[in-house]
Amino acid sequence: MGSPGDVDHPYVPRDLKLPGYVPGFLSQSTILAVYGISSLLVVSFMWIFSGRFRKITKVDRLLMCWWIFTGLTHIILEGYFAFTPEFYKEKTPHYLAEVWKEYSKGDSRYAGRDSGVVAVEAITAAIEGPACLLAVYAIATRKSYNYILQIAISLGQLYGTLVYFITAILEGDNFATSAFYYYAYYIVANIWWIIIPTTIIVHCWSKICAAFQAQEQKKTKTR
Amino acid sequence: MGSPGDVDHPYVPRDLKLPGYVPGFLSQSTILAVYGISSLLVVSFMWIFSGRFRKITKVDRLLMCWWIFTGLTHIILEGYFAFTPEFYKEKTPHYLAEVWKEYSKGDSRYAGRDSGVVAVEAITAAIEGPACLLAVYAIATRKSYNYILQIAISLGQLYGTLVYFITAILEGDNFATSAFYYYAYYIVANIWWIIIPTTIIVHCWSKICAAFQAQEQKKTKTR
Repeated sequence: MGSPGDVDHPYVPRDLKLPGYVPGFLSQSTILAVYGISSLLVVSFMWIFSGRFRKITKVDRLLMCWWIFTGLTHIILEGYFAFTPEFYKEKTPHYLAEVWKEYSKGDSRYAGRDSGVVAVEAITAAIEGPACLLAVYAIATRKSYNYILQIAISLGQLYGTLVYFITAILEGDNFATSAFYYYAYYIVANIWWIIIPTTIIVHCWSKICAAFQAQEQKKTKTR
Repeated sequence: MGSPGDVDHPYVPRDLKLPGYVPGFLSQSTILAVYGISSLLVVSFMWIFSGRFRKITKVDRLLMCWWIFTGLTHIILEGYFAFTPEFYKEKTPHYLAEVWKEYSKGDSRYAGRDSGVVAVEAITAAIEGPACLLAVYAIATRKSYNYILQIAISLGQLYGTLVYFITAILEGDNFATSAFYYYAYYIVANIWWIIIPTTIIVHCWSKICAAFQAQEQKKTKTR
């Protein structure tokens, strides 16, 4: 055991070993502003772009905005994390490394490479991310699989978030630098991936049931 | 560090600590026979029972057999594991404890209470298990949500199995007592929860797309 001075990172638990850790360069507000503004640009573009499709409802346009936002978040942000085990050693102000150095203040299992977190992030980035982009296309072109695809991705997001929270509880739920980071990063930033997928599942589930009810009625009539 | 004699369990890795471990009482063949015969009874009952429903296809009857089998496995076997952290200390030949003492030879993360494994098993037992029983009912009574429910559960089973295998790889993939247990328990016993859910997803996905295509054609005709 070394002296407390051995610990050269800001994360909790304090006995987490991160040899070669390099502190972040960018401020919290810079990191959030870049993510916020990029997301706003992507969503605005999608809102305008989706308006060019014929007979598309406002709900479908909103869904396209969500899928492009969450899809790019999965592929770029979470993809970088899943496949960059040593991001915390990054010596330059690489934006994606900065994001995860900052987020680890809310959940140090990211810097600590917890296997449950990495497994969920890898599935999210490699399977769900591309599927989100497919959902944008499927909604725009009114594919017959668009509702079932949206449910499939949303269920995956829910399952991943559940595993994320349950493993944290099982491991002692002590991974945040302070109560502020616990609530702001770990709870508030993740809760949207429970609320929005649940809403989408309810919406698409009822559309699918309605299609089967219509089919059933048609069969009864033609008999 | 103690001498090698300190390790009083048969599992790998050898440095896994399981204070209070009590060896299993039943033989492998007894454990497998009880599971096999119970499953056969349940499936036979469901096959006969499902035949009493009008206009039910053989595929739907097979699906009902699968859902009752996998649902009871999730609720009883996996439910016991998820909510019994100290099964390896069980001093009597409790069948469910015996199952997990035996299975841990293929994957010691069960005895070792790996958080990823427990999280997946808890979700499987508490959410997917009851949903499987609902699927039996939904197929029998031809509910409009039956296909989407089957897809939802199957996706959950796939996601859980993926997390199960990926976390094992990330943690070093060294949890089996021997190559026999690795293949027989860890690989062969689990692979069915990839093959069958995938088949069901393909089957139900096409049913849902067909319902939307029929709805679309109907709209076009009536215009």
